Amino acid sequence: MKLVTFDAGAGAELGVVDADRVIPLNRAAPGLPADMTGLIAAWPQVEPQVRAIAAAAHDALPLASVRLKAPIRRPGKIMAIGLNYADHIAESNLGTPEHQVWFSKAPTAANGPYDPIDVPKVSQTLDYEAELVAIIGQGGRHISKADAPKAIFGYACGNDATERAWQHRTPQWVVGKSFDTHAPFGPWITTADEVPDPHALGIRCLVNGEVRQDSNTRHLVFNIWDQIEHLSQAMTLEPGDLIFTGTPGGIGAAMKPMQFLKAGDRVRVEIDGLGALDNPCAPEA
Amino acid sequence: MKLVTFDAGAGAELGVVDADRVIPLNRAAPGLPADMTGLIAAWPQVEPQVRAIAAAAHDALPLASVRLKAPIRRPGKIMAIGLNYADHIAESNLGTPEHQVWFSKAPTAANGPYDPIDVPKVSQTLDYEAELVAIIGQGGRHISKADAPKAIFGYACGNDATERAWQHRTPQWVVGKSFDTHAPFGPWITTADEVPDPHALGIRCLVNGEVRQDSNTRHLVFNIWDQIEHLSQAMTLEPGDLIFTGTPGGIGAAMKPMQFLKAGDRVRVEIDGLGALDNPCAPEA
Repeated sequence: MKLVTFDAGAGAELGVVDADRVIPLNRAAPGLPADMTGLIAAWPQVEPQVRAIAAAAHDALPLASVRLKAPIRRPGKIMAIGLNYADHIAESNLGTPEHQVWFSKAPTAANGPYDPIDVPKVSQTLDYEAELVAIIGQGGRHISKADAPKAIFGYACGNDATERAWQHRTPQWVVGKSFDTHAPFGPWITTADEVPDPHALGIRCLVNGEVRQDSNTRHLVFNIWDQIEHLSQAMTLEPGDLIFTGTPGGIGAAMKPMQFLKAGDRVRVEIDGLGALDNPCAPEA
Repeated sequence: MKLVTFDAGAGAELGVVDADRVIPLNRAAPGLPADMTGLIAAWPQVEPQVRAIAAAAHDALPLASVRLKAPIRRPGKIMAIGLNYADHIAESNLGTPEHQVWFSKAPTAANGPYDPIDVPKVSQTLDYEAELVAIIGQGGRHISKADAPKAIFGYACGNDATERAWQHRTPQWVVGKSFDTHAPFGPWITTADEVPDPHALGIRCLVNGEVRQDSNTRHLVFNIWDQIEHLSQAMTLEPGDLIFTGTPGGIGAAMKPMQFLKAGDRVRVEIDGLGALDNPCAPEA
């Protein structure tokens, strides 16, 4: 199932995407949670009802007629792993890390799949990072690799957009990774049952139609199960938390000469079976 | 006004502390937001009503009879600045940073003022960091130093508890700063009108009664207004976001020999006029 948060003119609603239609959930069942985090938390109870609404397809709207928003408006947390594809480690002039390198993105950075990515007022070294995003389902603490697949609700495309100058101005990356609009994800959440192997997905980033990143999630250094096991040794993973699982080689900062995103550019992130983000870049309002 | 989230046996409620009593807010006014983030967001509208309830003091409970919880259960974000007191920079064998060094703590690390701090299963290098916490009110983006005081709702004591081994296992501090229970704050939020100068507050940390940190917020390298201006250049600060403003010298990792917190220890963080945290340390359940 492909779950979206959309706006058809009456504010944010949840829906199920079926080919070129979106089936509204809350109109059919006002008792369902009205936000995606609530829906994910309640999933064990509400899944049959959601599937029945999707099958009945009452009130379906043309997908092209609605605006897709960030599937989760304010994720509880956004954790992101760095240096997790060999070719990206090489282009960063670093060695393969012995331990997983984690940072966070502020929840206020969450952005929709087609909405503008800000070129910030304070810096103009905006870069892209195409990433597979795992969305936590029931979550928990001390989740073993073996149990990790059960902790995940679904998957989406993500762009770990980054202000490079701010990322590297101090040793801590968090603020440079946390500008408003710099965590587009979606276009929908594909439930995990429809992703038989998240470690075998082609992933690409195109800027103005030019392929900049072209890899496959099979090349992750620490795979998603490793990531869930590691993070949950420290923190409880909760419904709707996002895990950005790393970016392959091809970032703009590693090109010669360096190529940063500017207003008017379009950044497309595609992952096999999960759809695509297509965000324009625009000056911060 | 001193605002708390408390539990008197019927789940989390909001209240106002008046000396040794707590005045429940939601019983008197069921229309008020039931969570602190909502109350802070609605403050411009609800402040007169809250002050009237506090003055009437109906149904006041003995403060000692209720359990104080984290004032905000899941802050939208917790941003924390490192290396922000000269004596702490010196004990860390580092130079004064040219730019503010920011990291984050996961919202799942939020903890109550008297609740146990976990000694994690996976590491036993738990340390304390007494900090003044600023709680964002209306917040915003691109807030100037001059406007920063208006962006703050109130202040509280905080303990930026840290797993030192995990903090330094990679260059990124976030996971080592984000273990569950490692962000106690409170015991209440003192509204900003009762803190005429947040840069003139004595701040102390005691472990089992022994003074380990003893400083004053006048020694902040980057003061709170600088911090708000800087962070808001990148991200929107929202109601209920927490800003941990830095810790003075005296951390356990800088003692010779190093002293880490162990089960049974008590960590007390006191700030002039803001009350005190008093957390036991306990093995992770």
